[in-house]
Amino acid sequence: MGFYSRLNHAWLQSDSMLCVGLDPDPAKFPETLRGGARDIETFCKQIIDVTGDLVCAFKPQIAYFSAVGAEQQLENICAYIREQFPDVVLILDAKRGDIGDTAKLYAREAFVRYGADAVTVNPYLGTDSLEPFLSALGKGTIILCRTSNTGSSEFQSLETESEPLYLRVARTAVEQWRAIGECALVVGATYPGELAAVREIVGNMPILVPGIGAQGGDIAAVVRAGRDENNRGLIINSSRAILYADSSKTFAASARKVALETRDAINAANSAR
Amino acid sequence: MGFYSRLNHAWLQSDSMLCVGLDPDPAKFPETLRGGARDIETFCKQIIDVTGDLVCAFKPQIAYFSAVGAEQQLENICAYIREQFPDVVLILDAKRGDIGDTAKLYAREAFVRYGADAVTVNPYLGTDSLEPFLSALGKGTIILCRTSNTGSSEFQSLETESEPLYLRVARTAVEQWRAIGECALVVGATYPGELAAVREIVGNMPILVPGIGAQGGDIAAVVRAGRDENNRGLIINSSRAILYADSSKTFAASARKVALETRDAINAANSAR
Repeated sequence: MGFYSRLNHAWLQSDSMLCVGLDPDPAKFPETLRGGARDIETFCKQIIDVTGDLVCAFKPQIAYFSAVGAEQQLENICAYIREQFPDVVLILDAKRGDIGDTAKLYAREAFVRYGADAVTVNPYLGTDSLEPFLSALGKGTIILCRTSNTGSSEFQSLETESEPLYLRVARTAVEQWRAIGECALVVGATYPGELAAVREIVGNMPILVPGIGAQGGDIAAVVRAGRDENNRGLIINSSRAILYADSSKTFAASARKVALETRDAINAANSAR
Repeated sequence: MGFYSRLNHAWLQSDSMLCVGLDPDPAKFPETLRGGARDIETFCKQIIDVTGDLVCAFKPQIAYFSAVGAEQQLENICAYIREQFPDVVLILDAKRGDIGDTAKLYAREAFVRYGADAVTVNPYLGTDSLEPFLSALGKGTIILCRTSNTGSSEFQSLETESEPLYLRVARTAVEQWRAIGECALVVGATYPGELAAVREIVGNMPILVPGIGAQGGDIAAVVRAGRDENNRGLIINSSRAILYADSSKTFAASARKVALETRDAINAANSAR
C-alpha cells in the first residue's frame, strides 16, 4: 500500500486529521522522567499509547533525538508506533535537502532505518535533490512550501516571475513532482490565506499543517482554507500543546484530553460546510 | 578564537584552501574494509592521517553516517580531527533548516555533540531559522546560496524583484546575517560565473565551494572567480576524487597524492594574478 492509500485509510479509520508531533524536550517532562535517552523513549511511548486512536499520523522530529544522541530510542519509538498502531501514518520530520547522492542516503535514513511512511524535505536545491525521496516506492515526500515561522516570508514570499516562490513550489509539485512519486506539501497554520492559495493550485494533494496549538494557528481557519473537495486532505499537527498539556505525573491523561479536544475541534470545523 | 580567526589561521598555517570531504561509502572502500560502522571509522581516520597537513578544513557529510547508524563513529572521527590536527577547521555538512526551537537542537547537534567549528544550513525558512546557529558564539554558519547540482537553477536562479534568489541570499548574508554571527556561503564550483557575482556582493566573506573533482568544476576558474582581495576566502572541497582515488589497499597513499595535486593546482591557479 502506498503513502496516499495509507493516509486515506488512516483518515477514514481514525475519523481524524490530527497528527501528534513527537518533540520530546526533557526540560518539560514530569520530574520523574527527567533523565536521559531512556526517559525520552518512555515519555514518547506513553504519549503514543494515549493518543494513537485519535490521530491519522505521528510525526517524530528527529532534531530532538539527534541533539542528544538518542537515535536508538527514535528507532524503538518508530517500531513501537508500527506495532501498536499499524494504521497510523509515520512521518519523520527531518527537513532534509542535499544533492542527489547524499539525498539517497537521507532517504535510506528515513525509509529504511526508521521505517517512516513519509519524510519532510526542503525544496531549495531543486528537483534532482528530491528525486531519491520521490522515487522510493510507496513512500511519501512532504515538501516545505510555506512554513509556519515568522521569518518564512523572507524568501518564500518573494515575488518571482509571476508568483511568490512558495506558490511556484506548489505548482512544481503538481506539474512535475507528482509524476515522479507520491508527494505532499507543508503549509503553516499561521498563514490560512496562503494555505487557501496552495489548495487552489494542488487539487487534492495532501497538506501537512504545523502551527496550531503553541504556535497559535486557528483550527477553524485552517480547516476552511485547507481541506480538499472530499473534506479531507489535511494532516494537522500539534506537538507542544498536547505533549506538555500538563507537566505532572498525570501528563498522559492530560495529553489525551487535549488531543481529543483538538481532534473534535477539527471535526467540528469540518462539519460546518 | 572564533570561526573567522580559526579559518584564517588554517589558511595561513596549511598554505591551502583545500577541504577534504569525508563521505564514507563502504561500497567504494578497499575490500579489506568492507564491513560495518567500525570500518567507516578506520577508513576516515586513515584519510585524515594522510591529508591533515594539506588542508584548511575537513567536512564530514553526516548523511553517510546517519543512513547506517554510525553516529558514534562520527563523534569519534570529529574528536580524532581535533586531537591530530587541532588547527584544521571542522565543518559538519548537514544542511539543516527548521523553525527556531528545532534549529536550536540542530545547533546543539553540530556544535556540542560533534564539536564542529561550522555547519552548513539551508536558508529557505528565513532569518529566524538561522539565528540559533548564527548566535552560537565563536561558531560558523555556512548558508547554501548556489548549490553545485544541476537542479539548483530551478528555484535558486528565479528572478525575484531585482535579482535572482541566490544573490538575494548573498545580499541578506552581508546586510543582516553577518551582524548576528560569523557566516559564510556555499556556492558550487560548477557555476564560476555565479561565484564571481556572489564574491562581488559579499566582500571578504568566506565561501565554501563544493563540486570540483568528481562533480567536474574547474579549479582555475573557481580560484579566479571566487578568491577575495587577499587571495584567500575559499574553502574548496573535494570528496570522492580524493577518498576513492584508488580502491585497493594503497588507497591512503593515492588519496594523499590526489590531495597534494589538488592543493598544488589551487595554489598554482592562485599564483597566476
